[in-house]
Amino acid sequence: MNKKVSKSNLQQVTQADFERLWRLRRYLAPALVKRILAAEENEPFGFVAKRKRVTFMFLDIRNFTELSDELEPETISDVLNEYYTIVADIIGSHHGSINKFLGDGLLIIFGDPEQNKEHKLSALRAAVELKRAVADYSKQVSFLPMPFRIGIGINSGKAVLGAFGPENHIDYTAIGSAVNIAARLQALADNNQIVACKSTYEGLDASINLANERTVRVKGYSEEITIADILGYK
Amino acid sequence: MNKKVSKSNLQQVTQADFERLWRLRRYLAPALVKRILAAEENEPFGFVAKRKRVTFMFLDIRNFTELSDELEPETISDVLNEYYTIVADIIGSHHGSINKFLGDGLLIIFGDPEQNKEHKLSALRAAVELKRAVADYSKQVSFLPMPFRIGIGINSGKAVLGAFGPENHIDYTAIGSAVNIAARLQALADNNQIVACKSTYEGLDASINLANERTVRVKGYSEEITIADILGYK
Repeated sequence: MNKKVSKSNLQQVTQADFERLWRLRRYLAPALVKRILAAEENEPFGFVAKRKRVTFMFLDIRNFTELSDELEPETISDVLNEYYTIVADIIGSHHGSINKFLGDGLLIIFGDPEQNKEHKLSALRAAVELKRAVADYSKQVSFLPMPFRIGIGINSGKAVLGAFGPENHIDYTAIGSAVNIAARLQALADNNQIVACKSTYEGLDASINLANERTVRVKGYSEEITIADILGYK
Repeated sequence: MNKKVSKSNLQQVTQADFERLWRLRRYLAPALVKRILAAEENEPFGFVAKRKRVTFMFLDIRNFTELSDELEPETISDVLNEYYTIVADIIGSHHGSINKFLGDGLLIIFGDPEQNKEHKLSALRAAVELKRAVADYSKQVSFLPMPFRIGIGINSGKAVLGAFGPENHIDYTAIGSAVNIAARLQALADNNQIVACKSTYEGLDASINLANERTVRVKGYSEEITIADILGYK
């Protein structure tokens, strides 16, 4: 630990120390930073885990990992940063938050840490906008040796949300089948397709256009689940 | 953003503001915090992505997600925190760092951000110690309705490491096939088994005991890869 910002030196806080520490916030989701800073003293945000109903979205750039082995680090950086900026703007405007970066993939949560009772509709609307925005962006990166396409999987359900980890390194994480099912649906999605579970779109017919409703079995789960492709919103 | 710690108020830094901001460090890996705080001003750590040879380890608690749907959040929290503490202690003593928490799973990197030329041997030794420690821990959690077992996958290779993301939320991430292959090997591992790629154990016969060397094909990769079970170290 850098001496200038070690806790034992708190008596001599300087603006330079503060600015250095301020850098850390960029490495965490803005909605999470807000909650951590507002939390009660001696109880980190998320320390008391809770079971909560939210919506999970997994997003993946098709074949990007294989492609990344051939690209210059600078190109990967430029493309990912532009793409992530597009995603974060759309997600943020629908009150979602990036929970995890997984290589080029993303796990996005709607309904937590920012409260949002409409988390299902927000996720579906955000997905439709993402699909359109990425289709536009793909034209800007036509220099890549592979088309830039994404897959989106969405599922709603209860999961345990909390900050888990050793004393010196906790992480705000979601745990439960509902998360894994969203990941499986993303893997099922075709290029530039949004696959959502009925748990998310049920009762939203007035707002969402869907097609090809069907049942599937996903790895690790015995029950069939009903899914559909999300085409747009009204 | 909490007003007390907004950048516009940097002139009036108080110890309370500093302490509040200090909380953020717990939500990031200690080795990463060290590098972020020591970085040059105006260039966040990881901002210039680089391709580097490191060792990746994926760790997973078998069937924990399904189990977690039935457990109280408090039990999940207690078990995960104890388990993560055991893992972090062993990983840290071998100069590895938790890069991602993925539900109950972990992605650990050896060789970055802490420099370590012996990252292959460090990862293999850490895995053997983890396996033993988790076997002991499983006796403490015999009240769980399922045995507590892990699977470990290890692979070494080049990947692009960098802090990617939108302006207000970057994440220190590894991208490349070498990461994905480690994840696939973890999925191949039996309960309490360590599966490593030859890229990691090659040339380390004098230090590592292995068995059952074989070739496999993993999803998404055309070439066969040679793997073995890691039994112990000398």
